[in-house]
Amino acid sequence: MREYSCVHRGRAEPLDLHLAMFLPTLLNQSSPEQMEKFFIPAWNLDIIGTYAQTEMGHGTHLRGLETTATYDPATQEFVLNSPTITSIKWWPGGLGKTSNHAIVLAQLHTQGKCHGLHAFIVPLRSMNTHIPLPGVVVGDIGPKFGFDEVDNGYLKLENVRIPREHMLMKYAKVEADGTYVKPPSAKLTYGTMVFIRSMIVGEASSALAKSCTIAIRYSSVRHQSEIRPGEPEPQIMDYQTQQYKLFPLLATAYAYKFVGQYMNQVYHRITGDISQGDFSELPELHALSAGLKAFTTWTASEGIEVCRMACGGHGYSRCSALPDIYVNFVATCTYEGENTVMMLQTARFLIKSYQQASAGHQLSGIVSYLNESERRLQPQSVSSRPTVVNVNDLASLVEAYKLRAAKLVEVAAKSIHQELQKRVSQEDAWNNSAIDLVRASNAHCHYVVVKLFAAKLGEIGDTGVHSVLSTLALLYALQGIQQHSGDFLQTGLLSVPQLSQVSQRLKELLAQLRPNAVALVDAFDYCDEMLNSVLGRYDGNVYEHMFEWARRSPLNKTEVHESYHKYLKPLQAKL
Amino acid sequence: MREYSCVHRGRAEPLDLHLAMFLPTLLNQSSPEQMEKFFIPAWNLDIIGTYAQTEMGHGTHLRGLETTATYDPATQEFVLNSPTITSIKWWPGGLGKTSNHAIVLAQLHTQGKCHGLHAFIVPLRSMNTHIPLPGVVVGDIGPKFGFDEVDNGYLKLENVRIPREHMLMKYAKVEADGTYVKPPSAKLTYGTMVFIRSMIVGEASSALAKSCTIAIRYSSVRHQSEIRPGEPEPQIMDYQTQQYKLFPLLATAYAYKFVGQYMNQVYHRITGDISQGDFSELPELHALSAGLKAFTTWTASEGIEVCRMACGGHGYSRCSALPDIYVNFVATCTYEGENTVMMLQTARFLIKSYQQASAGHQLSGIVSYLNESERRLQPQSVSSRPTVVNVNDLASLVEAYKLRAAKLVEVAAKSIHQELQKRVSQEDAWNNSAIDLVRASNAHCHYVVVKLFAAKLGEIGDTGVHSVLSTLALLYALQGIQQHSGDFLQTGLLSVPQLSQVSQRLKELLAQLRPNAVALVDAFDYCDEMLNSVLGRYDGNVYEHMFEWARRSPLNKTEVHESYHKYLKPLQAKL
Repeated sequence: MREYSCVHRGRAEPLDLHLAMFLPTLLNQSSPEQMEKFFIPAWNLDIIGTYAQTEMGHGTHLRGLETTATYDPATQEFVLNSPTITSIKWWPGGLGKTSNHAIVLAQLHTQGKCHGLHAFIVPLRSMNTHIPLPGVVVGDIGPKFGFDEVDNGYLKLENVRIPREHMLMKYAKVEADGTYVKPPSAKLTYGTMVFIRSMIVGEASSALAKSCTIAIRYSSVRHQSEIRPGEPEPQIMDYQTQQYKLFPLLATAYAYKFVGQYMNQVYHRITGDISQGDFSELPELHALSAGLKAFTTWTASEGIEVCRMACGGHGYSRCSALPDIYVNFVATCTYEGENTVMMLQTARFLIKSYQQASAGHQLSGIVSYLNESERRLQPQSVSSRPTVVNVNDLASLVEAYKLRAAKLVEVAAKSIHQELQKRVSQEDAWNNSAIDLVRASNAHCHYVVVKLFAAKLGEIGDTGVHSVLSTLALLYALQGIQQHSGDFLQTGLLSVPQLSQVSQRLKELLAQLRPNAVALVDAFDYCDEMLNSVLGRYDGNVYEHMFEWARRSPLNKTEVHESYHKYLKPLQAKL
Repeated sequence: MREYSCVHRGRAEPLDLHLAMFLPTLLNQSSPEQMEKFFIPAWNLDIIGTYAQTEMGHGTHLRGLETTATYDPATQEFVLNSPTITSIKWWPGGLGKTSNHAIVLAQLHTQGKCHGLHAFIVPLRSMNTHIPLPGVVVGDIGPKFGFDEVDNGYLKLENVRIPREHMLMKYAKVEADGTYVKPPSAKLTYGTMVFIRSMIVGEASSALAKSCTIAIRYSSVRHQSEIRPGEPEPQIMDYQTQQYKLFPLLATAYAYKFVGQYMNQVYHRITGDISQGDFSELPELHALSAGLKAFTTWTASEGIEVCRMACGGHGYSRCSALPDIYVNFVATCTYEGENTVMMLQTARFLIKSYQQASAGHQLSGIVSYLNESERRLQPQSVSSRPTVVNVNDLASLVEAYKLRAAKLVEVAAKSIHQELQKRVSQEDAWNNSAIDLVRASNAHCHYVVVKLFAAKLGEIGDTGVHSVLSTLALLYALQGIQQHSGDFLQTGLLSVPQLSQVSQRLKELLAQLRPNAVALVDAFDYCDEMLNSVLGRYDGNVYEHMFEWARRSPLNKTEVHESYHKYLKPLQAKL
């Protein structure tokens, strides 16, 4: 297992779900007997498993999943079925060709009643021949945007019988006679989701940090055009537009690193609380993790493409590594909870909190700013309130982001209220306000990121490091204001002259960061082997290695490619 | 040749540059003797050629190209060389393995002087064996983001001698003794660039139209979650967030179609003028085409990814066709003039026009709005001027976009002015204002698109078509205002209450378009064969065909994949 993790560093592989989902799920949800029977062989790679939840017709909405597991007390077995085409399991990594087992999520039916989704261990292939077992229709789902090395699969179950002991029974149980025993708390599964999403935020940081490393190093190697006539072509890093593309992304990569660290810390703290039966902080963390997962993966995905295009034509070559970073990372916008759905989950928590505050409850935690919103954000006060933001002071900017979030939560809450006044249902009012809700969640997450970045500075003792990270934090905060200037103007948080100050200050910060840019990406500490990018080489020796890389292209195995003999020559002869 | 164009409809191929660049360049720049010698064999596909301009170290900045063609009067030959590693020709499509000739752009040296870039016909491979000729080092540059079917290549020339008659001599000439004869006008090549960029704007429309067709059809097939409890899962098209993602893109696809048509018309009109020696409109069209190429390719690329992600997990499968549309289209942001460079070219024209207007010259054409800017956009007038925009009236919105462009051109011009006052050089002042310049070009292009969309409505007689296209145009204009609300607030063109009206009106327009959405993509008239997308099928029979598509996956050729015997089984045996 140790050796395994080094095969392709940082790339997805067929055994990923075995390691990241199958083993942990066994560990968390097995009874002691199941640990013995399944976990040990799985640890030894005799059993290779995956986690089969998503179906062809059903993703985010778990209640919509159609696969059934019906208990037959006569034989003490569950009978698993894919009753429709849309119920075929679809997407699980390693399912197509690699796994011989899967944890299958299915609607549990016993004694004539459906008890919702439960997890079952289903053997898929013969342990001797690897041939699919009777009733198991399994295969690869075909080529994708990325994840070339992973056999994402489909699984159709046709009256597949498994012993009763194959249901994961640590929490819920089905007894021999078919009696269903409920799990103690539904909130237990929240924790895993929070953990996975905090991991994804960390990945957003890494993917962006790698992309910045490649683009910023290459921008210091590449010379192009001229700024001053007659002088040699400057490094493209000297163009203001190039700095404006890359430095805010560099700041973002640092910001997300701190956000990921924070989420991980909070997760571990709260896990401790949970084990002592205290679930009080879980809803907030769950809501926050959903929104931050969406917020960071969207911006990081866009950022990777900006880095790629900032490398010009060579960014389009796979020798840059950027195409691969993009196609593999962008999937995070869709998996583990589609991003828009995630934003709406966060919004649900924000609106609930807003309503509690409006009803006079004192909120605590990160949404406590909503306590003040009723008082401070009266419509008439917008234009009359003196603008207090200082665009050179990070604490003041954190405050501005907070008030923006408060205002946008209020706008969304008011939209729902207005819709309800038109006598539409609660659900339609929600859907008719969804644009505003996503906007509010975005503003909330943006506030959290700026706040955590500012908080991180307080932990840094080294004055040099503190100074350069402060510049990055200010750049991050100001660029967000420029990009969303409408929000800040609309809420009266900034004046028009202040916005011009922001523009001016941003340009100064870019120039200020220029000499440190390469050092700031070197500090991410990705070795060449990890980056696997000709453009991002530490030694800057790009062009020679690009030529070398090209000469190894599969098409160059022969001087005259077979297509000449097969197609071109016959075509020329015919004409 | 006729058959050829049907092999892979709409996909890039090794012979593309032969058809799109090699033949047209021969046609436009050959002497009559060269037509005879090269064009006829090329037309018959005996000669297969490509167009080799870009070098490993040099793209946009043509003066930086390093390949040399030195005339040797003793033998009446040109000697071609790649003097450095960065001078190796890089990227030309079909160069790697397919072409036996190339038009090579090289710095012409004769009688001890360099006369800049000229085009030379260079034989690369034996006409009998297809083996590279002596001194020609040629091959494929390796895998890329997309364009899998194209052998983009490299070419290193080592003292390759070609007869004098291989220089394309319709305009510039080198006589037998080495005397250089200048071409009549440098502006002649502008026309081709304008033409190619207007084609790219058309492609932006097509790529986005295809993506919208796939995403909107699939959103009517896919059911997910619930809006109202107890009711069946709704079509995902019924979610406001989904409409907000897709309908503005649908409007954009229509807008760009009209912009592409307009550019093509203007190009043909101006080509007529040029042939009569009238170049007066060319600079404006050249500048406009650069900016619109960048503006439309950036937004369309982002839009394709929005469409893809709007299809959830299945959008990530290549069965959706969206990954392929993206990787092949996004290259347009980089080729034929990198987008930021394009935006700065447009900005150069805008600033020049602004300065002319400031100096009292009366501008004509599309920049005539800059005539008014000095008078109307005094800083003190911003807050005092009554806001006249009517958010329900397209003509009024066109006016608002115009004033925004005028304001942002002014901001950029003032930034340059301020920099100059700090006593920096003209060139540094330009570079230190580049962010503002790109912003001004964006606003200018956005204005042109809205204006052309509005103008198109005037040509439509059918009331039903006029009505639905008016809705799309209004949606396009209002969504742009919402996205750039900071600009409109900052310039005092809109008030805060009007911005809320814009939000409200946008939501109404989405609901209004919902019943027509599928008809509006059907109207693009892409047959299933052209879309090649399981999700975008006209009959909506998505899931069955997805299963069928998956079963044909290369990995499914055998039930037990060779990787089991090769890796898994030995690994299990070892542990």
